[in-house]
Amino acid sequence: MLTGKQSWVFESKPIIRATGTIGGPFEAKGRLAEEFDLLHDNLWMGESSYEKAQTVLIEQACEQAIQKSGLNKEQIQFMLSGDLVNQLTPSTFAGRSLKIPYIGLFGACSTSMEGLAMAAYLVDSKGANHVVTVASSHNAATEKQFRYPTEYGGQKPPTSQWTVTAAGAAVVSTEGKGPRVTSATIGKIVDMGLSDPFNMGGAMAPAAVDTLEAHFNDTQTSPADYDLIVSGDLGEIGLAIAKDLCQQKGIQLKENQFKDCGLMIYREGQPVLAGASGPGCSAVVTYGHLLNRLKARDLNKILVIATGALLSPLSFQQKESIPCIAHAVSIEAAEVSL
Amino acid sequence: MLTGKQSWVFESKPIIRATGTIGGPFEAKGRLAEEFDLLHDNLWMGESSYEKAQTVLIEQACEQAIQKSGLNKEQIQFMLSGDLVNQLTPSTFAGRSLKIPYIGLFGACSTSMEGLAMAAYLVDSKGANHVVTVASSHNAATEKQFRYPTEYGGQKPPTSQWTVTAAGAAVVSTEGKGPRVTSATIGKIVDMGLSDPFNMGGAMAPAAVDTLEAHFNDTQTSPADYDLIVSGDLGEIGLAIAKDLCQQKGIQLKENQFKDCGLMIYREGQPVLAGASGPGCSAVVTYGHLLNRLKARDLNKILVIATGALLSPLSFQQKESIPCIAHAVSIEAAEVSL
Repeated sequence: MLTGKQSWVFESKPIIRATGTIGGPFEAKGRLAEEFDLLHDNLWMGESSYEKAQTVLIEQACEQAIQKSGLNKEQIQFMLSGDLVNQLTPSTFAGRSLKIPYIGLFGACSTSMEGLAMAAYLVDSKGANHVVTVASSHNAATEKQFRYPTEYGGQKPPTSQWTVTAAGAAVVSTEGKGPRVTSATIGKIVDMGLSDPFNMGGAMAPAAVDTLEAHFNDTQTSPADYDLIVSGDLGEIGLAIAKDLCQQKGIQLKENQFKDCGLMIYREGQPVLAGASGPGCSAVVTYGHLLNRLKARDLNKILVIATGALLSPLSFQQKESIPCIAHAVSIEAAEVSL
Repeated sequence: MLTGKQSWVFESKPIIRATGTIGGPFEAKGRLAEEFDLLHDNLWMGESSYEKAQTVLIEQACEQAIQKSGLNKEQIQFMLSGDLVNQLTPSTFAGRSLKIPYIGLFGACSTSMEGLAMAAYLVDSKGANHVVTVASSHNAATEKQFRYPTEYGGQKPPTSQWTVTAAGAAVVSTEGKGPRVTSATIGKIVDMGLSDPFNMGGAMAPAAVDTLEAHFNDTQTSPADYDLIVSGDLGEIGLAIAKDLCQQKGIQLKENQFKDCGLMIYREGQPVLAGASGPGCSAVVTYGHLLNRLKARDLNKILVIATGALLSPLSFQQKESIPCIAHAVSIEAAEVSL
């Protein structure tokens, strides 16, 4: 149900009944390795192209989530999927093999929460009993498309981020057991004129704070209502800017209350420059690590703000700045085990 | 509300309160020229690239629709937009200037009805009072990205289709005056193994009929419930195949009951080979011509099935076949003028 200008409150609190998190070899060396369902030991996943490998990631994430949910594929009404590849090629081919009625979404790295918001919305408003939502990225497929093939060995500045190779899926249901989705805020596109594709965290920070502010206004909440606020993939530079902007806007955060998925997934010492990024990043950190903490009651209520840089190689070539967006979803630990 | 396996019935019958339809010079010579709000006399629309020209089409379509709705931009809760360009570049940049909370969709040429289905769903379930949904394409931007720059003068076989230069937008509302959206069916991805990007109508026909069958089963309706069934852009070849498939599946159509937007927009003699295509095609034919016929009570109830070929240049290069999808939305003439 619409709340305020651009938010929904989910009265039935749809349940994240099960998740599937699949990663690649670099993620296998990361800090959250033990919280993945499955980790591949190379980037090809037995396929002949990186894009086909990404399709495998999506299929496996959905299959894991559906299997763990105790449902069968035919009981899932809709699949919501998005990724960074042109025309959502990996999502499309995964949708073809999964044969679930399909809604394609594009929000760059914000796709994880765009999908979770829509999935929870559909379940809350009786448009579906069970929805699977999935977001993914593949490091080499992304580098090849947006920058240079990794084989070129191009150098990057320290402000750039490392695209995660991973897919994270969630089955959102009217019934079952698991953490619950309580509200969502759909962001506006914000563009502060930054045009450096090697500093996307900096470009995305204002969009994250714009959505954060809209969320608190719309739902009449404040940071005090959340144990943790987690951005999608602002990285070190973007997170610092976002914290500054929060302070300027009077959004009062406690120490260590605002973290970033892009700074959680890898270990110190992994060469990821300013942090991780990609739609798969916030998807696996949320559906793996953060939900585990909610299930363990280490956290009771969190707000995930997935940020997306909606640039394209073409908009960069045409000397445009980077339009950014962020969508926020609040998740709480289940009150009762049903 | 979920009906059957993959459909929604909209009990409140959301109202298409106003629309905006913008076209290019080729559309200005077409059969439906008089039903556009605005026609440009060249493909550049005053911009320095075709993609930026497409952004102008989207902005103008939304602005027209919002202005005609009597609402102001701040009253519109969400903008749903999609197009064919990589990373939805034109949609993103239009979303940036319109500043309406933004949900990016990708369904290739099915985006028009993916957007209308979601917009009507949000309005029906009280997730929004007013939503603007828009789909667009630009002939030269599409040719450049998917095939060859038009300046090369490449030859095409007679099975190929002509991408429409147009954007169609609709403001869908809880109140107002206008035709009403009564149900929608979200399609599965269907791939019959066709791999010729110059015969997309043929590839898409099975997806259209799959969704048609699902729609009739889910909503317990039959072709007899509709005055007209209109596919998105199957073109001559695809429409003939779809009619054959309907017959095989026992879907009984009256003569002239099943038409195609891709065969309605241009005049005989315009060199469009097997017909028109592109997300803008079904958007402007529906929001212009078809809604005019509903308003005139020349038609009372229609079903629009927008079809999409979810291929990418990359999937073609990797020798994949073409995954296709179709989403159906039923629209009826307003019962009462409110």
